[in-house]
Amino acid sequence: MTILSEYKSFGGVQTIYEHRSEACDCDMKVGVFKPDGVEDDTPALIWLSGMTCTEQNFITKAGAQRMAAKQGLVLITPDTSPRGDHVADDERPNVGQGAGFYLDATKMPWMKNFAMETYIRDELIFWMRQELPFINMGNIGISGHSMGGHGALTLHLKNPTIFKTCSAISPITAPSQTPWGQEAFKEYLGETPRLWTRYDATYLVAKQPSQAHILIDQGTSDNYIEQLKPRLFKEACQEAGQTLTLRMQEGYDHSYYFVASFIEDHIYWHAKQLGQSQQRPVHQDYTCLQVA
Amino acid sequence: MTILSEYKSFGGVQTIYEHRSEACDCDMKVGVFKPDGVEDDTPALIWLSGMTCTEQNFITKAGAQRMAAKQGLVLITPDTSPRGDHVADDERPNVGQGAGFYLDATKMPWMKNFAMETYIRDELIFWMRQELPFINMGNIGISGHSMGGHGALTLHLKNPTIFKTCSAISPITAPSQTPWGQEAFKEYLGETPRLWTRYDATYLVAKQPSQAHILIDQGTSDNYIEQLKPRLFKEACQEAGQTLTLRMQEGYDHSYYFVASFIEDHIYWHAKQLGQSQQRPVHQDYTCLQVA
Repeated sequence: MTILSEYKSFGGVQTIYEHRSEACDCDMKVGVFKPDGVEDDTPALIWLSGMTCTEQNFITKAGAQRMAAKQGLVLITPDTSPRGDHVADDERPNVGQGAGFYLDATKMPWMKNFAMETYIRDELIFWMRQELPFINMGNIGISGHSMGGHGALTLHLKNPTIFKTCSAISPITAPSQTPWGQEAFKEYLGETPRLWTRYDATYLVAKQPSQAHILIDQGTSDNYIEQLKPRLFKEACQEAGQTLTLRMQEGYDHSYYFVASFIEDHIYWHAKQLGQSQQRPVHQDYTCLQVA
Repeated sequence: MTILSEYKSFGGVQTIYEHRSEACDCDMKVGVFKPDGVEDDTPALIWLSGMTCTEQNFITKAGAQRMAAKQGLVLITPDTSPRGDHVADDERPNVGQGAGFYLDATKMPWMKNFAMETYIRDELIFWMRQELPFINMGNIGISGHSMGGHGALTLHLKNPTIFKTCSAISPITAPSQTPWGQEAFKEYLGETPRLWTRYDATYLVAKQPSQAHILIDQGTSDNYIEQLKPRLFKEACQEAGQTLTLRMQEGYDHSYYFVASFIEDHIYWHAKQLGQSQQRPVHQDYTCLQVA
């Protein structure tokens, strides 16, 4: 494990680590934001990013450290795929490096490195347990944006005791039924649609709804909404008895301007359900400034 | 005037415009964040960015739209220099495109395009008056980071009736006495140090302190602190009777993690002095979410 960078942020520390993934046969970068003063039993939120992103996008653009510091919530931000010269790649934005889809590929050349489900569910969780002893591993939430929202929903639905709480912003919710997902799944999993269902939140929730209350925010001006299909997921939740709040946010698009505008609600949503109900004092206290 | 992009953000709109600068003989990009529901007499804060930045850095990384939306403050974010294939450039980060130092160059080749003082003070202000009629042009504040903090301090001290309130984060405060500034000033203004003083905040404040209360935040772990010299500026303020609050923030560096951590105080500082004392409701209202 190597520390690549470390910045003081909102009284806490934003670190980027690099650690070995056997499943992906490469070194993986992961961001950790540790609020000031947290010691034991701190809940954590794992944030999964979307296509073309790295571990950097969320930590530089979402502004989530502000609320995580107030709530006493650790933020864990893994990369979106294996990386390296020895790792297969593709020119399409939805296949290859930057587009791991949080699945374990079963087709060559992808299966040599693309094992993001195993990486997140097993290796990242094990690494957190070993290296971040201030986290309460029984109180882990998961969230994400776009392809990362797909990862959050599927990992939660399949592992509700590991990832206890779940939310998503502009998630891909029915990849088996939409072009981005179908194209990626053919590459990673082969031509048989039946084999895609274990990575399809709309299919999964019908079979195994969770006890959690899932929160989804979706912009109504999102150019990619036909790739996301939140209403299909909502219908499946209603049929299966999955508790879901889907908020259609008027005029917002697919960008980080949307993520930043609503991340506060998601941080509070997870913190409250993971037992952090009190707002903590952060260094900022405008009232102490004397304006002449 | 062209609209290059437009995003909904915290209930308002984050726009990038491009407009013609005669002073710089090129098209300039400028960001405008307009909070929802502001109509007439809205105060505005002009944010000047640092070396190597464009109009993008602040609007994607600082998270300032959150507070600007709450305070009803328009944010204006110009670029840091003239741009284009016909504009002189240099490999050094502190000279050429991205490093305009908010001055009017008097030496070739820079004087052909590098007239950022005239651009900000005259052309940008005129453009705001013409194109953004919801702004109260008598209630304009100015702030910035690093080289942009230098711009904010010097433009305010020289034009306190245009730029009424002033703050800065990690500003270059005494460029005539530090390597980055000396190197840039030799290029832009020539070898005579006497001619540099009109762009040196520490010199300017000694001659013409303002009625404003200036706020500066400076990280104690800033690797560039020898280029910034906040204590020289503080001493000059004390001698001249300039009201200043200089806060040395323990452990913070020169990055946008520092800007993001303290921008809330700066937004409130300007909003309050520019007459926006009430917090406005923004779309987010976590209490309306029902957590199961």
